[in-house]
Amino acid sequence: MRIVIIGAVAGGASAAARARRLSEEAEIILVERGEAPSFANCGLPYYIGGVIEQRDKLLVAPAQRLIERYRLDVRTRTEALAIDRANHTVRLRYLENCDEYDQPYDKLILSPGAAPIRPPVPGVDLPQVYTLRELRDADRLHAAAKHAQRAVVIGGGFIGLEMAENLVHRGIATTVVELANQILPPWDAEMVSPVADHLRERGVTLKLSNAAAAIEPAGDGVIVRLRSGESLDADMVVLSVGVRPDNKLAVEAGLAVGPRGGIRVNDQMQTADPDIYAVGDAIETHSSLDGSPTQIPLAGPANRQGRIAADNIFGRPTHYAGTQGTAIVGVFEMAAALTGFSEKALKAAGTPYEKVYVHPANHAGYYPGAKQMSMKLLFAPDGGRLLGAQAVGRSGVDKRIDVLAVAIKAGMSVFDLEELELAYAPQFGSAKDPVNMAGFVAAGVVRGDQPVAHWDDLPQLAAEDGQSEGLGRPEGLGPPELVLDVRMASEFAAGSIPGAVNIPVDELRSRLGELDPARPIIAYCQVGMRGYLATRILLQYGFNVRNLSGGYTTYKQTMAAKGA
Amino acid sequence: MRIVIIGAVAGGASAAARARRLSEEAEIILVERGEAPSFANCGLPYYIGGVIEQRDKLLVAPAQRLIERYRLDVRTRTEALAIDRANHTVRLRYLENCDEYDQPYDKLILSPGAAPIRPPVPGVDLPQVYTLRELRDADRLHAAAKHAQRAVVIGGGFIGLEMAENLVHRGIATTVVELANQILPPWDAEMVSPVADHLRERGVTLKLSNAAAAIEPAGDGVIVRLRSGESLDADMVVLSVGVRPDNKLAVEAGLAVGPRGGIRVNDQMQTADPDIYAVGDAIETHSSLDGSPTQIPLAGPANRQGRIAADNIFGRPTHYAGTQGTAIVGVFEMAAALTGFSEKALKAAGTPYEKVYVHPANHAGYYPGAKQMSMKLLFAPDGGRLLGAQAVGRSGVDKRIDVLAVAIKAGMSVFDLEELELAYAPQFGSAKDPVNMAGFVAAGVVRGDQPVAHWDDLPQLAAEDGQSEGLGRPEGLGPPELVLDVRMASEFAAGSIPGAVNIPVDELRSRLGELDPARPIIAYCQVGMRGYLATRILLQYGFNVRNLSGGYTTYKQTMAAKGA
Ligand SMILES: Cc1cc2nc3c(=O)[nH]c(=O)nc-3n(C[C@H](O)[C@H](O)[C@H](O)COP(=O)(O)OP(=O)(O)OC[C@H]3O[C@@H](n4cnc5c(N)ncnc54)[C@H](O)[C@@H]3O)c2cc1C
Ligand SMILES: Cc1cc2nc3c(=O)[nH]c(=O)nc-3n(C[C@H](O)[C@H](O)[C@H](O)COP(=O)(O)OP(=O)(O)OC[C@H]3O[C@@H](n4cnc5c(N)ncnc54)[C@H](O)[C@@H]3O)c2cc1C
Ligand SMILES: CC(C)(COP(=O)(O)OP(=O)(O)OC[C@H]1O[C@@H](n2cnc3c(N)ncnc32)[C@H](O)[C@@H]1OP(=O)(O)O)[C@@H](O)C(=O)NCCC(=O)NCCS
Ligand SMILES: CC(C)(COP(=O)(O)OP(=O)(O)OC[C@H]1O[C@@H](n2cnc3c(N)ncnc32)[C@H](O)[C@@H]1OP(=O)(O)O)[C@@H](O)C(=O)NCCC(=O)NCCS
Repeated sequence: MRIVIIGAVAGGASAAARARRLSEEAEIILVERGEAPSFANCGLPYYIGGVIEQRDKLLVAPAQRLIERYRLDVRTRTEALAIDRANHTVRLRYLENCDEYDQPYDKLILSPGAAPIRPPVPGVDLPQVYTLRELRDADRLHAAAKHAQRAVVIGGGFIGLEMAENLVHRGIATTVVELANQILPPWDAEMVSPVADHLRERGVTLKLSNAAAAIEPAGDGVIVRLRSGESLDADMVVLSVGVRPDNKLAVEAGLAVGPRGGIRVNDQMQTADPDIYAVGDAIETHSSLDGSPTQIPLAGPANRQGRIAADNIFGRPTHYAGTQGTAIVGVFEMAAALTGFSEKALKAAGTPYEKVYVHPANHAGYYPGAKQMSMKLLFAPDGGRLLGAQAVGRSGVDKRIDVLAVAIKAGMSVFDLEELELAYAPQFGSAKDPVNMAGFVAAGVVRGDQPVAHWDDLPQLAAEDGQSEGLGRPEGLGPPELVLDVRMASEFAAGSIPGAVNIPVDELRSRLGELDPARPIIAYCQVGMRGYLATRILLQYGFNVRNLSGGYTTYKQTMAAKGA
Repeated sequence: MRIVIIGAVAGGASAAARARRLSEEAEIILVERGEAPSFANCGLPYYIGGVIEQRDKLLVAPAQRLIERYRLDVRTRTEALAIDRANHTVRLRYLENCDEYDQPYDKLILSPGAAPIRPPVPGVDLPQVYTLRELRDADRLHAAAKHAQRAVVIGGGFIGLEMAENLVHRGIATTVVELANQILPPWDAEMVSPVADHLRERGVTLKLSNAAAAIEPAGDGVIVRLRSGESLDADMVVLSVGVRPDNKLAVEAGLAVGPRGGIRVNDQMQTADPDIYAVGDAIETHSSLDGSPTQIPLAGPANRQGRIAADNIFGRPTHYAGTQGTAIVGVFEMAAALTGFSEKALKAAGTPYEKVYVHPANHAGYYPGAKQMSMKLLFAPDGGRLLGAQAVGRSGVDKRIDVLAVAIKAGMSVFDLEELELAYAPQFGSAKDPVNMAGFVAAGVVRGDQPVAHWDDLPQLAAEDGQSEGLGRPEGLGPPELVLDVRMASEFAAGSIPGAVNIPVDELRSRLGELDPARPIIAYCQVGMRGYLATRILLQYGFNVRNLSGGYTTYKQTMAAKGA
């Protein structure tokens, strides 16, 4: 058995290593255009920023080890030019001397990854404009960062923000330009507005709802002209507006690709040609939640898909269960993570959903160092099945999203979250962990104990932005809701929702007479807990009331996101 | 509806708060012997150690808040003396003036917790001997720690170790005496031997397989005489040898208790008397894994059970799904966590199981600050259903155990772990997360790709300690296994398993001739990865070979545990 693998990093190297473990006999040829196989793509920004000091740390499995330990035929600086399916060969070029030859294969695995998108902006090919994919790119950026004083990062996705952080580490004044009206587009806008604030605190300038219209040379540097009319001086520009599957070999070989360019494979990672497999960033896969086609250019899926391709080549019918879009990004001291569907994805798909927000501390509040996080849970209004989750904060975010990722994978509902038995000691969590807490709140919503409202239900804002999907949304249109702030007077004074009336929850029972029983109420507090209690009290006294989920904290995060 | 709740902390206060949210009308009487309701039991050691500086941080929900916000009738310094089931009253005594009265109830919730066990050791009642349960105990210990220079902690369970850490924080020379031959008895010994080492590094003296035989006054302090004949001078002694359900009220009222004293309840937290509920440390509950009766004195279960009791009182048929024993303890810079069954529990129950060990880093190795952890996975040899997991390390331990706790709750197998899609960026994990990795390894074992051996299969040790449950254990007795160290010569030279022969994995293919094909082999490396590759190579060349799970690292941890 002769296996040729194109691309020797996350998917390719994993496939090769697994193939060797499955077969001592196979001939395994690992073809890589770059200088080194098996490098840490995900570490490149941190090498540029000096967080990872030694370049050789990036070489996860050096070629020599793959050769000696895995007896792989590692061909670096070798580019695959074309596949000849009929003859089972792939045309390779050794880049050092441009020698070309046809390499026969029995099975071919494509793991060429994805290429940074280069938007058709004038000046995008100037030498001061960089993208980041390979070691060589990292070397260039590392060198450029030595002398640069001002940088512009085009694209506020996860690679863009990692670059911004690392440029700041190098003392470079950095501006991020993002087309969307938010950073980190896979997340819902209100969840990441605290990350945007944090970037600004750390000195990064954000230009949202904006884009580079042209990049022009200016002395040693460039001027980036924005659509808004502004221009930014920069010594270097980093393009990070997304990636596109590197599907050239596949397309030219007549293999099908999806609408966004991902190579089509079945759940055994096999393309339409049974002798050609494809994995990683280059493919279209499917959502493990609803089976819909999706492209998730992340390392975990690439690694596992590589392993599955090797399995199938050796007759083990391993199936890829699909991708649920679990991801995390660190941005200075903060982290943002998500799993499953976002609200915008659910909206776009027309899937019915409800949501709740909670803002628990990462661990017991009485133990020093507790940090508040924000969590959002998306679930089926009917039955409470989990659809997605997002978390943002300074600590413990990764844990909660991983827990929720498993819960989603297991097909759990919000009721199951109430019961999860998670590890508690004061340094690590709470007796009611944030995940339990989110479960309690969501379960209360599904059970009807806690009708919730969202920002777009607020009378001042509802007019502008249409209907909410709120479960408790009253039929028809009655009088506009009373917005009832149940926090302490001092909290109310320090900032509140326009038009709100303040009755602290502790006084509510004795001041019920001040409320018009005919008028629906939206209650709120700082994070939702007192608002919930107020809602329970008022419901029992016959009021039509909903709790503003996430309280003033979510409201402010949402307004910040909208104002951006 | 008049509800009387005995015990106003984790279970009781949670039941009370939930009851109020469910009913504005109910009369809710919260009876607490101590000075304050709703305090942070779990924070007490850290208050004693000065980590939590302000005492009022321990008052999670001060009485005033429970009164104003939840309209609870909070009766502190009030002890419940007896239950009169026929008359639906409970006899209460106000401890300030010893007034007694019969308090009628419609529903009674018992949440009296558990009392520290006081072993029948002479001198156990001396004033220098402390236990830790209530605020008052913490105050006493806080005061005693001011002047103490030497302390003895009797009992190396989680409260004992938290006390040891905090006494060290106060500059006190501390010795922990533990009857078992390991600290943290719920864990398997080899998993916590690194924690024992860490305690010793931080200056704590451990006396394992030992016990206090007598405590004698000596000047202002005491002498603790150990069974071993040694004696220890101490200014203070902390007794932490476990807790016993505080079941006096229940027993005297004729309610059934289990063999270990836990009040018997159904899964709606109801005792044999339908008007009396019991929750928390005081009860016997059941394992969510196999339904067997169990007692788990932890805060998460107590909080959730309190909520469930309130639900059921108000006609919501919420059921407690049982307890899976998820727990964590921080010990200086380390943490030890577990969920599900331990190996010793499986052994005791006669449940068939297999196990694997892995020692992955908490996050990508190329990103600064990665710390190695140790994980143990227990699973059904047939089908791979997860039975239990343990993790020990400096960072990321809580996350992995929580992920595994959900996986166990969901009834997942080791094959499901291979597929979990967890959040990866270099600061938080690896593209193949430790949990995936443990899943790969265990799945390989169940599939037969990776026959494993354990320390007690090693020829020198097997004789002493009987048979292993290893899946790959050869039938009958052939020649003694060759123990093959596949690490580099330098690693081998720095320490190896007695009798082992060294052939580095990278040379193995070319040195096969040195191996006797008739002799079974146990291969090992530092953590198990190279041993696994060696196993794959040798299997394919027809050798009878197993990989020593966890490699030399687990071997050393096991030997350390046995030698202790
Ligand atoms: C800066 C950066 C940060 C990232 N951070 C994260 C993160 O934190 N978490 C995460 O999950 N993911 C992250 N990723 C994404 C992750 O690296 C990819 O999802 C993963 O590497 C994809 O694996 P792959 O095997 O499909 O492609 P790659 O790992 O990109 O490997 C493809 C290889 O194929 C080679 N190649 C392509 N075409 C040819 C050809 N014709 N001939 C020969 N060789 C060829 C390329 O040179 C390349 O080395 C990051 C990516 C980048 C660039
Ligand atoms: C030092 C310490 C550290 C801990 N650390 C952790 C940890 O890190 N993680 C974890 O999960 N768990 C921890 N626990 C355990 C956790 O605190 C308990 O599991 C939990 O509090 C049990 O709740 P409960 O309601 O059953 O009992 P408790 O919270 O103990 O409350 C019982 C209350 O009932 C009162 N009472 C008893 N009898 C009567 C009576 N007759 N009349 C009136 N009042 C009465 C008592 O005074 C007591 O205040 C720790 C416990 C201690 C002591
Ligand atoms: C403090 C104490 C009285 C609180 O009890 P509680 O009100 O039931 O619990 P919490 O304060 O955690 O709040 C949980 C409730 O708020 C709701 N909630 C939480 N966050 C919310 C939000 N953002 N929006 C809406 N509702 C929210 C939950 O749904 C839940 O209500 P439910 O049970 O009706 O569904 C009790 O937990 C206690 O005494 N704890 C200290 C003692 C202890 O646990 N010791 C051991 C550990 S140290
Ligand atoms: C380094 C690389 C070649 C390794 O591939 P790999 O050998 O499949 O993966 P790992 O080194 O993680 O090892 C996993 C294997 O070791 C086994 N293993 C791990 N720990 C073990 C242990 N303690 N005992 C026994 N076996 C163990 C696993 O079971 C698995 O084998 P399997 O797939 O046959 O079940 C590949 O992952 C790579 O190139 N990575 C860098 C590039 C990259 O991923 N970039 C994106 C992220 S920055």
